[in-house]
Amino acid sequence: MSKDNINPYTDLAIESRDLAVERTGGEVKGVKVDEQTIDHAKITRIEVMNKQAAEALGKKPGHYITIHSDKLRENNRQIHEYLSGVMAAELNQLVDYNSLAKTFDQEPTILVIGLGNWNATPDALGPRVIHNLLVTRHLYDSSPEDVRDGMRPVCALAPGVLGLTGIETAEILKGVIDRVDPDLVVAVDSLVAKEAKHLNATIQISNTGIYPGSGLGKQRLGITKEDMEVPVIALGIPTVVNSVTIVNDTIDELMENRGLSNTNLQQELGQVNNQQKQQLIKRILQPYLGDLVVTPKGIDELIRDVGRIVAGGLNVAFHPDIKKEDVSLYLQ
Amino acid sequence: MSKDNINPYTDLAIESRDLAVERTGGEVKGVKVDEQTIDHAKITRIEVMNKQAAEALGKKPGHYITIHSDKLRENNRQIHEYLSGVMAAELNQLVDYNSLAKTFDQEPTILVIGLGNWNATPDALGPRVIHNLLVTRHLYDSSPEDVRDGMRPVCALAPGVLGLTGIETAEILKGVIDRVDPDLVVAVDSLVAKEAKHLNATIQISNTGIYPGSGLGKQRLGITKEDMEVPVIALGIPTVVNSVTIVNDTIDELMENRGLSNTNLQQELGQVNNQQKQQLIKRILQPYLGDLVVTPKGIDELIRDVGRIVAGGLNVAFHPDIKKEDVSLYLQ
Amino acid sequence: MSKDNINPYTDLAIESRDLAVERTGGEVKGVKVDEQTIDHAKITRIEVMNKQAAEALGKKPGHYITIHSDKLRENNRQIHEYLSGVMAAELNQLVDYNSLAKTFDQEPTILVIGLGNWNATPDALGPRVIHNLLVTRHLYDSSPEDVRDGMRPVCALAPGVLGLTGIETAEILKGVIDRVDPDLVVAVDSLVAKEAKHLNATIQISNTGIYPGSGLGKQRLGITKEDMEVPVIALGIPTVVNSVTIVNDTIDELMENRGLSNTNLQQELGQVNNQQKQQLIKRILQPYLGDLVVTPKGIDELIRDVGRIVAGGLNVAFHPDIKKEDVSLYLQ
Amino acid sequence: MSKDNINPYTDLAIESRDLAVERTGGEVKGVKVDEQTIDHAKITRIEVMNKQAAEALGKKPGHYITIHSDKLRENNRQIHEYLSGVMAAELNQLVDYNSLAKTFDQEPTILVIGLGNWNATPDALGPRVIHNLLVTRHLYDSSPEDVRDGMRPVCALAPGVLGLTGIETAEILKGVIDRVDPDLVVAVDSLVAKEAKHLNATIQISNTGIYPGSGLGKQRLGITKEDMEVPVIALGIPTVVNSVTIVNDTIDELMENRGLSNTNLQQELGQVNNQQKQQLIKRILQPYLGDLVVTPKGIDELIRDVGRIVAGGLNVAFHPDIKKEDVSLYLQ
Repeated sequence: MSKDNINPYTDLAIESRDLAVERTGGEVKGVKVDEQTIDHAKITRIEVMNKQAAEALGKKPGHYITIHSDKLRENNRQIHEYLSGVMAAELNQLVDYNSLAKTFDQEPTILVIGLGNWNATPDALGPRVIHNLLVTRHLYDSSPEDVRDGMRPVCALAPGVLGLTGIETAEILKGVIDRVDPDLVVAVDSLVAKEAKHLNATIQISNTGIYPGSGLGKQRLGITKEDMEVPVIALGIPTVVNSVTIVNDTIDELMENRGLSNTNLQQELGQVNNQQKQQLIKRILQPYLGDLVVTPKGIDELIRDVGRIVAGGLNVAFHPDIKKEDVSLYLQ
Repeated sequence: MSKDNINPYTDLAIESRDLAVERTGGEVKGVKVDEQTIDHAKITRIEVMNKQAAEALGKKPGHYITIHSDKLRENNRQIHEYLSGVMAAELNQLVDYNSLAKTFDQEPTILVIGLGNWNATPDALGPRVIHNLLVTRHLYDSSPEDVRDGMRPVCALAPGVLGLTGIETAEILKGVIDRVDPDLVVAVDSLVAKEAKHLNATIQISNTGIYPGSGLGKQRLGITKEDMEVPVIALGIPTVVNSVTIVNDTIDELMENRGLSNTNLQQELGQVNNQQKQQLIKRILQPYLGDLVVTPKGIDELIRDVGRIVAGGLNVAFHPDIKKEDVSLYLQ
Repeated sequence: MSKDNINPYTDLAIESRDLAVERTGGEVKGVKVDEQTIDHAKITRIEVMNKQAAEALGKKPGHYITIHSDKLRENNRQIHEYLSGVMAAELNQLVDYNSLAKTFDQEPTILVIGLGNWNATPDALGPRVIHNLLVTRHLYDSSPEDVRDGMRPVCALAPGVLGLTGIETAEILKGVIDRVDPDLVVAVDSLVAKEAKHLNATIQISNTGIYPGSGLGKQRLGITKEDMEVPVIALGIPTVVNSVTIVNDTIDELMENRGLSNTNLQQELGQVNNQQKQQLIKRILQPYLGDLVVTPKGIDELIRDVGRIVAGGLNVAFHPDIKKEDVSLYLQ
Repeated sequence: MSKDNINPYTDLAIESRDLAVERTGGEVKGVKVDEQTIDHAKITRIEVMNKQAAEALGKKPGHYITIHSDKLRENNRQIHEYLSGVMAAELNQLVDYNSLAKTFDQEPTILVIGLGNWNATPDALGPRVIHNLLVTRHLYDSSPEDVRDGMRPVCALAPGVLGLTGIETAEILKGVIDRVDPDLVVAVDSLVAKEAKHLNATIQISNTGIYPGSGLGKQRLGITKEDMEVPVIALGIPTVVNSVTIVNDTIDELMENRGLSNTNLQQELGQVNNQQKQQLIKRILQPYLGDLVVTPKGIDELIRDVGRIVAGGLNVAFHPDIKKEDVSLYLQ
C-alpha cells in the first residue's frame, strides 16, 4: 500500500485506464475492456495486451478484474456473502487449477499471502484475510479421500512489513516459497486509490503480481511469477487515497468550472503548469505530507467486513465442496 | 470527535483564536493570550473572558491551555516522559485540589472519563488513556495512611459511544456521577483540528467541559459543570482533520499565491464566494463526504504513544508521590 | 467470575443440584427439575421453589435453565446458529415482554450488561457479547413504524471490573439504570464450573440476578431485581474451573476406585477427612493458589465463538423480525 | 508450547534436573550445576555435558540458564527493567558476537523468532516479544557509522503456528533463514512447566535449540543448529502447567504424607503403579484432556509484562549502546 506518492498514483487498473482515456480521448491501443453489470455490482475486466499499453497505463501486461459494489461498505451480511461468491467466480476465471498441479492426480497447493501491517488499520486487510481464511494443507494428507476430493491444500502467511521485521517482505516470501513449493500464490493487500468513490467499494483481482512496500531505492524482488517462479494472483481493495491526490482532484474539478459562474477562472487556472500545481500542494501539505492518509471514518469495521468477504471468496474459490450459500460457515 | 462538519470546524481554541485574529486583524476583545516557549514545546494559555469573546471564537468562556510539541509524534520515550510532566503541571494550574474535597481532611475523588470509540483508531484516545491510567479509588480506604498521603482516589470509565451502547454518553456519565459522587471529572477525548500541523502534536486542556458526539439534533446534556454538577476538565489531542477542511485550506493557500506567477489567478479566485467554494468542495468529495477522515499514517502507534503520555501526565498530576522522573513506572 | 474459592464452588445450578442429590441420595425438597433432550443439546430446567431449597443448593429461589451442548466447543457455524435459536426460545420463556413495557402501546427497553474483564480472556464473555450485539435504542424512535414493529429498543454497556474502574460494577449499573430506566436488564457473564465437562459447553439462564466480582468483604449491591429495581435475567457460560476443584475431583474419583485393583486404597483414602484433604490440596497448590485457573487451551477462540452465539441468541430473542435462520446476518 | 503430554513433561531443564536428583538421590553424572543468588533473583546455570546426562534428563547436551524471580509476576516496572538487564547479561554469556560475524569488520546479523500463537494468550509470548523488539536490520546499512557502532542488525519474525498457516513452523524458518542468512537465531517461546511455582517466574535461556509444536508424528525439522545451520539460542518463560501434571503432583504430595496421620495410606498408594495412576488421571480428566491448561488468572497482563521484559533484555543484549538503565526507552 505504501507506494511512492507519484501523482496521481493509483493501484487500480480501472483508474489508470480512465485517466488514459481522459488524456487521449479514446480507448488506449492494446487495452481490451469488458464491462458487465450484475445485481449489486459492476464488473470490469481489463486486459493490458502488450508493452505499449502497459506503458500507457503504468500497469504490467495481464488481466485486471474489478468488482465494484457500494454494498461492500454496508453492514449487510447477506449481500456480503453474495459478493464473496462473485469474487470467487471472477478469481477462478484467472486460474486453471488442473494445469497447476504437479502431477495429474494431485490438487495444486495454494499459498495465500496476507501483505500489510496488522498495526495500521487501513493496511491490515491482508492479515485480516489470513485470520479468517480456512487453512487446510496440514490436514489434507490425513483426510479421508472423499473429504479431500472437495477441498484443496491451502496454506497461509502474513509476513508483516519491513518496518516490523527488518526484512524485505518479498525476501521472506521467496524463502518460504522455495521451501513449501506451492503451485499458486494469492497475495492479498490494501491498495491506494485515486478516487474516493473506490474506497472500500472495489475488489481488484489480477494475474500480474505485486510489488509490496516503498522500498529503499534499490531494485527489489517482486511478488511476481518471474521472481517467485510460481503463478501469482494479486487481490486487493483500496482503503486509502493519499492527501495530495484528493486535494489535486478537487482543484481539478474546480478548474473544470463545476458551478463556478466566473468563466475567467478556468482559463487562469488552466495556465498553471500541472507539475507546478502539484508541487504547490505538496508544499502546503507539509510538514505531514506523505504521512497523512485519507481513509473512511469507520475503517476499523470496514476492514473487518471486507476481510471476511475476501476470505469467504477465497474459501469458495479454492474448495469445490464449499457452496456459495454456506460461505459464512467456513470463515475462521 | 464527531462534531458536525461545520467549516472550518476545529476543537482547538488556539485555531479559533488564530482564525479570529486573521479575520479581524488584531487580538479579539476579551481574549487573553499568554505564550511560553520551553524545551521541546510551546505552551499557549488562552482565556476567553466573556460572552462576546466566546461568540467571536465559538468557544465557551474559560481557560484553554495548549501544549504544542512535534515530539509527541516521535518515538522517543524520554521526551514523552518529560511531556507527561509538562502536561501534569499545566493541568494542575487549572485545579485546586484543596478546595475540591468534600471535607477538610479528605482528598478529592477524581473520575477520569475516556470518551470515544475503541473500535475506531483515531477516536480511541480516551479509552487508551483509561487503559494506561493508575486507578486507586478501590484501594484508597484500605491503604496505610502514609501511602494514602501520597495519592488521591482515582476512578475511571470508558463509556463507549452512542453507536455502541444506544445510550447518549452524557446520560451514562450523569448516572454514574450521581452515584459515585466524584469531586472532579477529567474527560479525555480525540479532537478535530483544522490544520494538519496540529495533528498528534497538541494537547489541549480546558476547564470548560465538552459535548461528545454528533447528536441527533436535539438539545443534549453536556459533560460540563452545569450539567454534571461537578467541575469538569476536558483534555484532548487532535487526531483527525476533516477532508473538506484540508482541501479548502490548500485552495486558500493557492489563492494567496504561494509561488503562483500568475497574478490574475488570485483575484479571480478571490471573487468566488467563500460559501460557494465550500459547497463545491463538499459536492466534489461526495459520495464519501463527512465519512472520510484525514489522519496520520501511523495513527495506531501514535494513539498508543499519546495514550501513554496522557495517562502518565494524569498519574503525575493526581498523585503527589509520583515523581515526574518515574512516570513510566506507574503506567498500567 | 471471580467468586471466592469456596469449595466446591460452582456458578451452575445444575451442578449444585447434582451435588445435593449425591449428598442426600434423592431430589432436594422444593427443587423441581425438568429435562428435555433435543438435537445437539440437553435442556435442564430447574426451579428453586423456596428458601429451604435455596439453602440446600446455595442458589437463590427462581428459575435456572441450562442448555448443555458439546457443539458449543466445535467450530461449526451452522450448529452455532441453531443453538442461538434454542437459547432465544429458552430465554423468552422467562420473559413476558408485554407485561414489562411501561405503557400498553410501547415496547419494553432492554439493557444488556456485559460483565467481566476484557483484558482477561476467560472473563471476557460479557464484553464480547456486547461487541456482537445489535444495539437499536438510539435508532428506535426515528425508525419507520413498520420497522419498529419488528424490533425492540436495546441498549448495552460493558462496565469493566473493579480493578479497571475503581468503582463497584453494580454501582455503575445502578447509576446508569436510574438514568436510562430500562424495563428489563440482561446481564451476561463468564461463570465458574466445578466440572470440566461443563466448560464452554453450557449456557445457564436464570431470573435470579447475579453478584459480580469478589468484593471487599462488605455487603454490596447485587445485580438483582431488589437492588436494581428492574427485572434481571442473568446469562452465563462457564469458562474456568478452579484448580483446587479439579484436583479434588480427580482424587475423589481415585477414591471411588475407578480401575484401581487395590481394594484397600479406597478404604484408606476414605478415612481422610474431607476438609483435611482440601486444605492439603490448597497448601500444595501454593504459592499460586486462587490465582491459577483451569481453562480450555483454545479459550481465545472459544470466547469469540460463544460471544457470537449468545449475541445472536439475544438478537433473535429481542427482535420479533429477526428469524432464527438469519441469526448470522445481524451479528455486529 | 504444545509438546505431547508426556508425564511429567517439562520444558525446564531445572525441573528435569530436580526430578533426576530426586529419583537417583544425587547429582546426575555429566550434569554441572552452578547457582547464584542476586537481588530479586536466583540464577541456576546447568550444563548437560554428554549424551548420558542428556538421556537421564531428557534434555539435549548444552547450557541451560534459569533466572528465577517472583518479581516477574509483579507489576513493578523498575524491577522489570532490572531483570531485563540480568537477562541480557546471562544471554550474552552464551554468545560470542565476534566469532559469529561473517567477516572481521562486520557485526553479526541476528534473527529473533517469536514462536507461538498470537490468538492463544498463554502461547503468545513469542509474538509479544517481536511486537516490542527494536528491529534495526533495514536501517543498519544507511545509518551513520557512529550510530552503527553501537548497534547490531536485528530482524524479527513471528511465523505463527501450524494450525494458522498450514505449514510446519520450522519449514517457514528454514526458508527464511536460507534467504536472509543470519549469523545467530534467537527463538522465543512460551514453555510448559511441571511446577506451578515456576509459572511466569522463570526465564530459561539455552544454546540447544527448540522443537516447536506437537507434530504430526513424523520426524521433523528442529529449530536447532543442526537443522538451521546457524547457532540457535532458545529463550522461554513457562506460562502453563498441564492439568495432568498438576493433579499428579498433588497426589504425589499426598502420598508423601504431608500432614496425613494415616501411615498406611502412603504404603497403599505407593503400590499403585505410576503409569497406572497417570492413566487413571487422564481417564478422569476426559473428555477435555490435553485441551485443558492451568494458567495464572492474570495471564493476559502477565504476557504483556514479560513480553516487555524479554524484548527489553534482547535490546540491551544486542546493542552495546543501549544502557541497562534506559531499557524502557527502546521498547517498541
